[in-house]
Amino acid sequence: MSINKLSSVTILHNALVVTMDPLRRVFRDGAVAFEKDSIKAIGHSKEILLQFSSHSPNIIDLNRQFILPGFVNTHVHTSQQLGRGIADDVDLMTWLHKRIWPYESNMTEEDSYISTLLCGIELIHSGVTCFAEAGGQHVSGMARAVEELGIRACLAESIMDSGEGLPTSWSNRTTGECIQSQKNLHKKHHHMAEGRIRIWFGIRQIMNATDHLLMETCNAAKELNTGIHMHVAEIAYENQVVKDTRSVEHGTVRYLQKIGFLQKNVLAAHTVWVDDNEIALLSQAEVKVSHCPAAAMRMLGFAPVKEMLDVGICVSLGTDGAPSNNRMSIVDEMYLASLINKGREVFKKGTTNPTTLPAETVLTMATINGARTVLWDNEIGSLEIGKKADMIIVDPLSWTMMPIADWISSLVYCMRTENIVSVICNGRWIMRDRKILTVDEEKVILMAKDASAELLRRADIQLPQRMNVL
Amino acid sequence: MSINKLSSVTILHNALVVTMDPLRRVFRDGAVAFEKDSIKAIGHSKEILLQFSSHSPNIIDLNRQFILPGFVNTHVHTSQQLGRGIADDVDLMTWLHKRIWPYESNMTEEDSYISTLLCGIELIHSGVTCFAEAGGQHVSGMARAVEELGIRACLAESIMDSGEGLPTSWSNRTTGECIQSQKNLHKKHHHMAEGRIRIWFGIRQIMNATDHLLMETCNAAKELNTGIHMHVAEIAYENQVVKDTRSVEHGTVRYLQKIGFLQKNVLAAHTVWVDDNEIALLSQAEVKVSHCPAAAMRMLGFAPVKEMLDVGICVSLGTDGAPSNNRMSIVDEMYLASLINKGREVFKKGTTNPTTLPAETVLTMATINGARTVLWDNEIGSLEIGKKADMIIVDPLSWTMMPIADWISSLVYCMRTENIVSVICNGRWIMRDRKILTVDEEKVILMAKDASAELLRRADIQLPQRMNVL
Repeated sequence: MSINKLSSVTILHNALVVTMDPLRRVFRDGAVAFEKDSIKAIGHSKEILLQFSSHSPNIIDLNRQFILPGFVNTHVHTSQQLGRGIADDVDLMTWLHKRIWPYESNMTEEDSYISTLLCGIELIHSGVTCFAEAGGQHVSGMARAVEELGIRACLAESIMDSGEGLPTSWSNRTTGECIQSQKNLHKKHHHMAEGRIRIWFGIRQIMNATDHLLMETCNAAKELNTGIHMHVAEIAYENQVVKDTRSVEHGTVRYLQKIGFLQKNVLAAHTVWVDDNEIALLSQAEVKVSHCPAAAMRMLGFAPVKEMLDVGICVSLGTDGAPSNNRMSIVDEMYLASLINKGREVFKKGTTNPTTLPAETVLTMATINGARTVLWDNEIGSLEIGKKADMIIVDPLSWTMMPIADWISSLVYCMRTENIVSVICNGRWIMRDRKILTVDEEKVILMAKDASAELLRRADIQLPQRMNVL
Repeated sequence: MSINKLSSVTILHNALVVTMDPLRRVFRDGAVAFEKDSIKAIGHSKEILLQFSSHSPNIIDLNRQFILPGFVNTHVHTSQQLGRGIADDVDLMTWLHKRIWPYESNMTEEDSYISTLLCGIELIHSGVTCFAEAGGQHVSGMARAVEELGIRACLAESIMDSGEGLPTSWSNRTTGECIQSQKNLHKKHHHMAEGRIRIWFGIRQIMNATDHLLMETCNAAKELNTGIHMHVAEIAYENQVVKDTRSVEHGTVRYLQKIGFLQKNVLAAHTVWVDDNEIALLSQAEVKVSHCPAAAMRMLGFAPVKEMLDVGICVSLGTDGAPSNNRMSIVDEMYLASLINKGREVFKKGTTNPTTLPAETVLTMATINGARTVLWDNEIGSLEIGKKADMIIVDPLSWTMMPIADWISSLVYCMRTENIVSVICNGRWIMRDRKILTVDEEKVILMAKDASAELLRRADIQLPQRMNVL
């Protein structure tokens, strides 16, 4: 055996390893060995150290820290990061027409690049190694940023070929142009950045999509063997419009099923306003669902997450975009998901149900269900031999988490973003000891500050003053 | 003028100063001058620097950081901090009978001291300079810890003189003993620690209180001119029991009003299950309410916060205890309070209302309403000349908050605990650059780890294993 070749093995040991594998194994004094982009071995520290002792591996003692699979954020608008705080405490129509559309339609490719860099910094700090872009502006800018950041992403363009009140630059777009643009993006960026980037198709939402667009998207995604990311059943009004204009009994999901759009490569974001029949339809079609607790609470309503999980739907977690949240942390979304879905039971049963969405379910949503949602679970979402080395290191030895009576629940209820100290993606350290190694955080923050101010000026977005500023 | 005397003035300048004063003034380039325990001046940096330039003050340039009043956490079980994670994902009866009661009834005075130290560290990191203890074990231990920590507190004992299933050491206590014990605590600790400690009366909840206890508590609190902290209308079952056993139309609040217990010195925690009439009763009596969003979502239900604020009730924020949350951060509770109460509107109107509980209302709840709730607003809760120098410094220049389009909303929706860098209480720096100066964090964490493990053994609390631990 060549020493050179084998010395590229890294062993992380003396850690609590939460694998999220099919057996949900947790190694109390565990270790993970990885080489290049892949996991070589997982087990007890002693065994792993012994197994690789002759290979001159790079050995790192984690001193009882935790190792988990990297989190997957399955619904995030990276190009909205520069718009953080531009739409707080306003109604939905103001949010959309006066803030988000002017903001997005005035973005440049460079803005999208900077926005994704800034968003990526927040994602990495919160332990995300893979995300699904919800459909945004200038995918080429996003791709540049993702390549630099070193994370994994399923990128999609914001696609609309119809609808009222759209900015002119958007409303002129034909269905054919929408599809062609995405095929071009696929050709250019799919599988780039050592395979970390995938290109998906986007549908903003049904009120901005003709049937022609829906079906062409379905066909094109099938042809290119990729996924479709779509906002589904976000508000009650959406269902009403679909009922009124598309002759169907109950809203978006029923209609999408009727036209054959519901497939297992569809990522449905939010799915708040779905009835029991529609939940069954989503389940049968193996549609994946991204639950975004913060955005749902603020703008949309309570998704029937327990009901969806109960019938076997793959539900994962998303942060949505900065102007809908504004924290972009899957760590906070885990905490919220558990709380909100326990609380929601009160409306059905008269009491909350503290046993709903227990910690292990929430961790599943943030990891392996996230990977299944982005159609990438053959390579990521759990720590297993042969899978990609996408993992995070959590330091629990602080006042935020101590004392720990229950390891697994401490990750959902106590852990905060700041407990995540290191992030490895595709076998590469992209954050170590809370410092991101791939991009210059301070520089990006300054660029983002300037770009955001300039973009808000260009889009003529003015916010009312709060309080009495002197 | 004596130079010696005046050189004790400290000026914090070049900051965004959010005063939370009656005019809700915000100084864009502001400064605060304080001397000993009190605020001497607030205004624009230039003016304040000029005003004190001849006094050889200690001048600190904050480089555009934010200054706010210290937050007030109006419902926290400090003696439960060692029990973090012992009662996750279990039903309410298991929570109470199998976990919390065994835990609390097995605590020593030293456990309470260590628990309060650990809890205090988390409170200080999250910007809290004053808290109201919800009623816990061994107040003398809490008082020792508060004295060392350097924060401000209204301490109360956990008081029960009746009820089913209580541990023996508690059930033997007579009403007279309950009152006398609290009078003794008042004598010993009230106004101690430079006036930072106040002793309140506690009532755990109505199902553990005889009418005799309620009325004696009312009288004793009046006599000693202090407050009463009580859990009120936490679950629907509580109201049912009160209806069944105390011959009243609708639950706890109606009953407390009937017997004359509702007064302006009552701090009612949670108040989830109150109808419109009861909201009116709380308002008329000027009862103060502590809203604990995380604990409510998990265990209790949705409090009618908007309705209570609309009729002028002083509603503030609390974290509740570690086994009910488990994050003990008012920063997170601000974020949650806004989200949850926007979301809750969906059940009344069919859509969430993103304009409910806007950022300025939530900040009011965490600051001046907190101070009013703990009956201390003549001295704390806002930055005003003559008030105590209780304030926090927020560093917004990180990826967690940048870019900032709206200063005030960024404090509620973006700020995380880690953005709070320094805390001043009673004119003393108790945290600076994220390091607590009054107690040794690492030492407390180690003490807490040991004390918690020992206490859980003594109380024979065993948790089921999650996942497949090897």
